[in-house]
Parts: sequence; structure tokens; C-alpha cells
Amino acid sequence: MGDRRVAVISDAAGYVGPALARLLAPAHDLVLGDPDADLVAELEATGAAVAVAEDVRDVGRPGATDELVSVAMERFGRLDAAAAFTGRIVVGRFLRSSLEDLRETLAGCVEAPYLLLRSIVPAMIEGGGGQVLLFTSAAGARPTPGAPLYSAARAAANMLVRNVADEVVGRNVQINAIGTNFMDFPGFLRANRAEDPEGRARVEANVPMGRLGTMDELAHMALPFVDGTSRFTTGQFLGFAGGWV
Amino acid sequence: MGDRRVAVISDAAGYVGPALARLLAPAHDLVLGDPDADLVAELEATGAAVAVAEDVRDVGRPGATDELVSVAMERFGRLDAAAAFTGRIVVGRFLRSSLEDLRETLAGCVEAPYLLLRSIVPAMIEGGGGQVLLFTSAAGARPTPGAPLYSAARAAANMLVRNVADEVVGRNVQINAIGTNFMDFPGFLRANRAEDPEGRARVEANVPMGRLGTMDELAHMALPFVDGTSRFTTGQFLGFAGGWV
Repeated sequence: MGDRRVAVISDAAGYVGPALARLLAPAHDLVLGDPDADLVAELEATGAAVAVAEDVRDVGRPGATDELVSVAMERFGRLDAAAAFTGRIVVGRFLRSSLEDLRETLAGCVEAPYLLLRSIVPAMIEGGGGQVLLFTSAAGARPTPGAPLYSAARAAANMLVRNVADEVVGRNVQINAIGTNFMDFPGFLRANRAEDPEGRARVEANVPMGRLGTMDELAHMALPFVDGTSRFTTGQFLGFAGGWV
Repeated sequence: MGDRRVAVISDAAGYVGPALARLLAPAHDLVLGDPDADLVAELEATGAAVAVAEDVRDVGRPGATDELVSVAMERFGRLDAAAAFTGRIVVGRFLRSSLEDLRETLAGCVEAPYLLLRSIVPAMIEGGGGQVLLFTSAAGARPTPGAPLYSAARAAANMLVRNVADEVVGRNVQINAIGTNFMDFPGFLRANRAEDPEGRARVEANVPMGRLGTMDELAHMALPFVDGTSRFTTGQFLGFAGGWV
């Protein structure tokens, strides 16, 4: 087992993955899911060892998180931290929804984090402990107009985090969730037709802070939940949504 | 107005004050309430400018937080962040309590943070924005055997944070709370008769994680709430209590 901490980032190609990888690299070796080659080169230049897992971005695909764990153990022999983005946005009013819509939402928002935790938590227990941070959604913390099924499913994930954290609290594994909304990344902009200035202004008008959040901000808030400096909290949900929750 | 960020720590003599001051010093000038001389010398040696406010540790004393603001503005001409510990522990069963007990609790746990926010938030608005982090208690997030009045008063403070954060969300001021319990510091050990090994073991048995939290851990978790790297969340409560909440 090496001396450096090892952190897994399930999706290093987008969302907060690259920003968080940059903050972790000075003190961690990294297992990255589907990173761009440029990012790997940039991180390795800082002295971090980087192992790549391929085709794991969708942690709801059975086996994806097992692959992340395998790469960590085979390459580094340890697994100290894991950060993962989960969730599939399904929009539309309840009164126009179908059971199919609900099942798709539950698969993306509840089964995916379940599979992730079901794979990573036992590996961390076996290794003597670790930290998991799930990026969920602030929609799980309040009714969400236009996305009622998504909001309900996200609430399930946030409460799953609390329950799993409780179950393993004595095993030196901490599990927390940060629930975002209104983050500035291509998927959000596309889904909200905010890629042009007018669309962006319309979306920003719905954010109490009047702007979108950056991935660099999210990475800084996430860091103490995974970097080993602060292990006395678990089972928490932190909203990160410009004052919306 | 100087180039460096300026952070106020209301009580730098104890609790998380010294640990947080050390983490902030590389990128902040500091206004410290009642610090030890050794701490000031240590921080200044890192290149931080340190201004001292005296007799301000009890932020419930009218004028105490005005003094912190005055020192910040007079010495540095700006005020970017403030971290403050508030609260007075009053124990005892509800059925044996008095109105006096309640009033003492409310003064320490609600009026003190009110006065702090009432003084610092307007100053931050006038200066173009800022971040406030209140250290409250995890007791405000669940019923607390043996401290029912304290638990209720802490809940008020945690909700006050949410409300004030909402009121000023458009003014570039973020206000959050971290609620602790089972932290390893002299006041907690003394109050819980945990200064000897047997007493400590008895207290630790009540913590799901089986240990007390360190001030260094708390400071690391607190940092992104005050250091300007992550300003897209406000009105949040984060429990920090070894899995107790």
C-alpha cells in the first residue's frame, strides 16, 4: 500500500470532476473515470499518479463502480476517497407523467447511487475506512416545479446517504451528499435552453443569487469532505444552489 | 482598501479560533478577538497582518461585534469574512427547568448570534459582500436529552441563519452555520466531566464514531465557508458531530 492517499472520481470528463481532481492532485493519487487525455497529463505533471477506468461514467451501469474499485486496488492497493455524480433529470408535470417516467428517474437517481455505495463502501470498510461524497441535487431538499419525480427521487438518494452513513458510522467510513442546482456546465445549460445570453439571463433570474455556480466553487466546498482533513461528520446533506434551498 | 482578504474571528483564544486562524493566515489579514500573544506572533510570522479586538469573546455583550467591525474597518478598510462561536450551554430536564433557565439560554444562543449578525451583515453589505459562518450546535438539529432548552434555542439560531441568509441573498453576503457536538476542547471536557480517561471513555461511548472531533478537523471543514473560494451556497446548516445528527 502506497503512502499517498488515493481518490476515485467516477466522472472526470465533466461536471465537477476536473476541478476536484486538480484540487486533490497535490496530496492524492487518482483513479479517474473516462478523463480527457489532457487532464491526465496536467495532473501527472503535478506529481500525482493517475489510473484511468473506462466506460464508468454512468455509475448506474452494473459493474461500473466495481471497475473503479478494481482499478484503485490493482494500481494503488488502497482507496481513501470517492466522489461521484449521479442522477438523471426527468422533467414534466406529475399530472402528465407515467410510471415509465418514474422508473427512469428512480434508476438514475436512486439505483445508481445505491450501486455506487454498495460497491465502494464494503471496499472501504475492508481497507480500514474512507470517505464518499455524492453529488446529488438540491431538488431533493424542496418541491421542484416542473420536476416532481426527480425531486422525490433525489430526496430518496439524500436520505439513503444518511442511512448508509449511520449503518457504517463505526467503521471509519464517512458518507455525505452535496446537492446542487443552477451550476454552470454544458448539461445544465443545454437542458435549460440557457446556452445563449437571453436564455442564461432567464435562468439566472430564478437563482436567488442571480448567477450560476462554478465548478471551481463546488470543488472547493467538496474538498474537506474527501481529502482526509476532516472526518468527524457523516450523513450530512449540504445544499449548494445559490440560495435556492 | 488593501489587496488581501480580511477575516474576523470573534473568539481566537479557544475553540476553533486558533486552528481556523492558522488556515486563513496564508491568504487573509486577521481581526482576532482576545487572542493569546503567542498565536498573534505565530500568525504574523506567516506574513498575515493581525489586529486585536479586546474583550469581545462574548458576542452577546452589546457592542462586542461592533468593536470587531470597527477594528476591521479602521485597520484594514474591509471585512470579507467572519467566523464566530456563540452559545451558552444550559442543562437540566424540562420538568425541572425555570423561565430563568430559558431566558439565560435564549440570551446566549439566540440573542448573541442575532447581535453578531445585526452588526456584521450590514457592514458587509456596505462593503459589497462577505461571508459569515456561525458555529452553533448539532443539538439544534435533534432532540437532546438533558438539554431541551438549549436544543430549542440552538434550533432558533440555525433557523435565524437561514432566514437572514435569505433576506440578504441578493447582496452578495453568504451566511451559514456549522453545528457541532462532542468536540475535544477544555470547555466540553469540563462540562461533561470527561477530563480523566474514565470520563472521556464514557462520553466517547455516546458518539457514534466513538471519539471526539478535533478543532483541526472543524477548521478544515469551515474553511471553504469563509475563504472566498466557494460563494454559491448560503443559509445552510452542516452538522459536525461524529454521526450524532
